[in-house]
Amino acid sequence: MAESPTLSRYEVRRIDTGRLTLNVRIGGSGPLMLFFHGITANSAVFGPLMAAFSDRFTTVAVDQRGHGHSDKPQTGYDAADYADDIASLIETLDIGRAILVGHSLGSRNAVTAAARRPELVRSVVAIDFTPFIEDEVFASLSARVNAGDQAFADTDAVAAYLANRYPNIPAPAIRVRAESGYAQAADGLRPLASPSAMAQTAEGLRADLAPAYRDVARPVLIMRGANSKLVSADALKKTHALRPDLPIVVVPGADHYVNETNAEVTIGAIRNFIDG
Amino acid sequence: MAESPTLSRYEVRRIDTGRLTLNVRIGGSGPLMLFFHGITANSAVFGPLMAAFSDRFTTVAVDQRGHGHSDKPQTGYDAADYADDIASLIETLDIGRAILVGHSLGSRNAVTAAARRPELVRSVVAIDFTPFIEDEVFASLSARVNAGDQAFADTDAVAAYLANRYPNIPAPAIRVRAESGYAQAADGLRPLASPSAMAQTAEGLRADLAPAYRDVARPVLIMRGANSKLVSADALKKTHALRPDLPIVVVPGADHYVNETNAEVTIGAIRNFIDG
Repeated sequence: MAESPTLSRYEVRRIDTGRLTLNVRIGGSGPLMLFFHGITANSAVFGPLMAAFSDRFTTVAVDQRGHGHSDKPQTGYDAADYADDIASLIETLDIGRAILVGHSLGSRNAVTAAARRPELVRSVVAIDFTPFIEDEVFASLSARVNAGDQAFADTDAVAAYLANRYPNIPAPAIRVRAESGYAQAADGLRPLASPSAMAQTAEGLRADLAPAYRDVARPVLIMRGANSKLVSADALKKTHALRPDLPIVVVPGADHYVNETNAEVTIGAIRNFIDG
Repeated sequence: MAESPTLSRYEVRRIDTGRLTLNVRIGGSGPLMLFFHGITANSAVFGPLMAAFSDRFTTVAVDQRGHGHSDKPQTGYDAADYADDIASLIETLDIGRAILVGHSLGSRNAVTAAARRPELVRSVVAIDFTPFIEDEVFASLSARVNAGDQAFADTDAVAAYLANRYPNIPAPAIRVRAESGYAQAADGLRPLASPSAMAQTAEGLRADLAPAYRDVARPVLIMRGANSKLVSADALKKTHALRPDLPIVVVPGADHYVNETNAEVTIGAIRNFIDG
């Protein structure tokens, strides 16, 4: 099955940042808006958001290290590793400061990049990842991530697996994940995301993110799915107490995968934030 | 007692918009940022916010109709009357679209103006006034507003009265209200705000604001004091359900008078919104 029309409007490019080679989807023109996916996903999940903003921005969705068709070093999957990839990409693209839109792992990475290199960042949309996520939530996430390391007979089998793993993501978005995130191996279709990199990344997510949120000097829009199993109401409350000046959008009916389950509200919230 | 240094940095100007003459405090340079006070107050309450933004914006705090030294027509104190004053002021100033910062009555007026004349507005900071405020809250507000129509021996007596009415507003901000909002009459100091205009304005606040929030096509930052007695948690929840795409900042420890009780967080939240 062909990729969805949403994806084919974007050019795929490989960019050597000096640190590593990143695979990106790039579209539009204007100031820079970068998109960073969650763990085990890839740049393809941002098709609807790229479509919404490509009339005003150079939109670049990134396969982060260890994921998709980007480099997959043996080690180096902590917050600083990912964040410095973002900084090096902005410097390599060299068209000015970027708005960073990140989901989950990508949210953690984007806020960390803004805290480390504020001069490269205009603002951050931080979707469903905050400090103060509970240990048992991380344990459950690691288990799900590690269970993804398996072979599938075909893309339909992948889609069936993903639909079960992400019950609220609509079928077209599941299809995008199935078609973009797997490649033929000797024993069938296997995830492009490196199993070892995913295990290290999941561990790295446990590091305390409170210092980055405390220190970040660029605007951050905190978004949470009202039904998220990753960011609890309590984690959001503690994050709000840490930084009461940061705006919050809680998306009704959304689970963790806010930009895939509720693309329209996500796009509206980003617009209201960047046009404020 | 002299006015505080914060106020003296701004020029007082009278502007005939064609609809009426508005008294304003104006400072800074750059794009337009307008400030609209709550019922019975006046432009002086925005000294700290004007100071924070005058390096980047032409800051204009307005005595709204019926208040301060602006015109006080016999009738015409509904949302549309106030909102069209805002539109006429932006047109008269003629330096482009404005960011509107409004508290309470001013918040209602700013959102209404943005809904009626979106081409004149960049965005709105809507402080502690939402749709779905309960009838008994409005009844209590009307009683407090009408009780303000009295004569005071001197400014200290005014300050004592205001400190009792607004127990969480710090003494310097109480002093600003006392010094800016009263004038000598035959029987003592009386409010500049017209008692008849205040009564009509309080009644007008009861009109359903949900259509304006539903329709407004410019970004609105919804701010609420965590301890506000005007905007209940339930009113905020219903407003969020109406417009889940609008960012929210709830200010810890603040009551209704968010920008006076918690100026620093208010300024930070506005920065994060307009720099997003």
